[in-house]
Amino acid sequence: MELLNRTVEKIKPLDKAAMAEARTRQDTLTKPSGSLGRLEELSVRLAGIQGKARPVIEEKAMITMAADHGVVDEKLGNWPREVTAQMVQNFLRGGAGINVLARQVGARIIFVDMGVASDLRPDPQLIVRKIDYGTQNMCLGPAMTPEQAISSIETGIEIISDEVNKGLDIVGTGDMGIGNTTASSAIFAAISGKAVEEVTGRGTGLSDEQLSYKVTVIKRAMAVNKPGPSKPLEILGKVGGFEIGGLAGVMLGAAAQRIPVVIDGFISGAAAFIAAALAPRLKDYIIAAHVSAEAGHAAMLEYMGFKPLLNLEMRLGEGTGAALGIFIAEAAARTLNEMATFAEAGVAEGE
Amino acid sequence: MELLNRTVEKIKPLDKAAMAEARTRQDTLTKPSGSLGRLEELSVRLAGIQGKARPVIEEKAMITMAADHGVVDEKLGNWPREVTAQMVQNFLRGGAGINVLARQVGARIIFVDMGVASDLRPDPQLIVRKIDYGTQNMCLGPAMTPEQAISSIETGIEIISDEVNKGLDIVGTGDMGIGNTTASSAIFAAISGKAVEEVTGRGTGLSDEQLSYKVTVIKRAMAVNKPGPSKPLEILGKVGGFEIGGLAGVMLGAAAQRIPVVIDGFISGAAAFIAAALAPRLKDYIIAAHVSAEAGHAAMLEYMGFKPLLNLEMRLGEGTGAALGIFIAEAAARTLNEMATFAEAGVAEGE
Repeated sequence: MELLNRTVEKIKPLDKAAMAEARTRQDTLTKPSGSLGRLEELSVRLAGIQGKARPVIEEKAMITMAADHGVVDEKLGNWPREVTAQMVQNFLRGGAGINVLARQVGARIIFVDMGVASDLRPDPQLIVRKIDYGTQNMCLGPAMTPEQAISSIETGIEIISDEVNKGLDIVGTGDMGIGNTTASSAIFAAISGKAVEEVTGRGTGLSDEQLSYKVTVIKRAMAVNKPGPSKPLEILGKVGGFEIGGLAGVMLGAAAQRIPVVIDGFISGAAAFIAAALAPRLKDYIIAAHVSAEAGHAAMLEYMGFKPLLNLEMRLGEGTGAALGIFIAEAAARTLNEMATFAEAGVAEGE
Repeated sequence: MELLNRTVEKIKPLDKAAMAEARTRQDTLTKPSGSLGRLEELSVRLAGIQGKARPVIEEKAMITMAADHGVVDEKLGNWPREVTAQMVQNFLRGGAGINVLARQVGARIIFVDMGVASDLRPDPQLIVRKIDYGTQNMCLGPAMTPEQAISSIETGIEIISDEVNKGLDIVGTGDMGIGNTTASSAIFAAISGKAVEEVTGRGTGLSDEQLSYKVTVIKRAMAVNKPGPSKPLEILGKVGGFEIGGLAGVMLGAAAQRIPVVIDGFISGAAAFIAAALAPRLKDYIIAAHVSAEAGHAAMLEYMGFKPLLNLEMRLGEGTGAALGIFIAEAAARTLNEMATFAEAGVAEGE
């Protein structure tokens, strides 16, 4: 708990002076003022986050965390629990969506086993920090113990700290875990007080009947656990997941070290919910990459006040949306840094 | 006229067999079917355009065309005509927005002087194919002669042919020309029959008063020229611009050689209007990169049935939106090509 508290305390407001300087520079670059739209706005925020008038996006990383979920015992969807471990193997062989997109944007990927239900083959690309072999079934009681909730967040903090030490300018978050949209919907419902129906989507592709069963299952989990709306650690412990806790830790640890965090879709959003409830200043450090096709994600972003950069109707997870978001953030920083000013270029300035 | 006619005839329907094969492959890749959203849809279209079940996006180019506009004599905005030439010099020194973003996506840039009002310093990166030293003032008569209209399009066709010969998998289009939103609004109004007010925006940043004056000027040009709604060459000649004709030619020539064309904003959209009116099949070859902040652009895309990939509230032109669109197209092709199938990865497939 001490690492978590210390990290939350370290999260400072954005650097207003750096932001003002970046804003001023934007207005001297060879373009009509404001014509790069959200790239300009984002470049100024990156300046505030990094505390540099000329923010740099060179060292890029994706952190994709995997874990299993006891609630899968309720037979919610079409994909067996084993797919979590199989997909991690696919990650390690470079064949998943996130591998392809991270390669394209030039981001290294750190895969973390936060609690996959089986032992994975050791691999230099895989960090094994299992909190347990999957969570418990939240329909029967809490998904994890209070200690496990704290431990999952602190693990995320440790992992991002190691990455910062290796050199890091921006991080994207991603997830893998059969059952984790169920946990994320429960978290969103618990914090926001919204009806479960409103915040529950089709995940990997449920039918109408399966969707309505998923809603019933989440309601049962909420009735059994009664998570308190303003108690983020309790919510994470009762209806969350180890990868969700880990990602919340990554976000807090990144913000504490002034690293911008590009979040992916619904599961990263649930992690951001937990993290922002622990540290309200975190929100300024978060860049919402995209709005996913998962029902409830748009409402989640709106509830948090995040304006997504992209809408490509994606719903794959793994960090695929975040990888594309890193590209946009890099474009924002590069245009701010590399464009010539009117004076440098000898171009007449519009009034 | 013969090159133009021959090019239009060469534009064939999309390759349905390649598209079907790409669609089938998408459904075997390690992800829930459809979960890459618009990337999947785009990958299938790229297959149909290139006529390859596994479309390749490696050799990328931006073609940015510049020209001046006689209508600037009406003193429409805040930026003097000289800025066109000054910005081309800025392009050649690598300091403009398009330079930065094309570098980031790994696209070469071809700058073309289609009709800048002054002589530019020779530069290996600049192709000089001046149709004239700027168009005539369309408030006083046609912007160009009928021969110039054809010549501007055929120049675009020649330029893209040279690039295809050098190796090209995708091309983005961009523009520079003080006054060219005025010409583009006139083209859109002429083809669509929409009211000038509906299709006219603030360009580089006009005040309310300047905007209403711009509407008056466009109405005057329409009254003087009376361009016929279904006569694309007449419209281009009477109220168009040399860079707009050139870009229309680039689009036609690219489609004739099965090269996908990523179009930028309002000016590229006007060029696509002209080109698609000459060759309706062209539309299948066009990828609309983004909806710009220029009023009228969303309506233009909707009128043509194009669904933009991005909305970052940009309105810079030069091809900056198209460069980002090339990145998304590359992501679409890469995920289709590089992701593992369920069988390859040994992952259990959802029902």
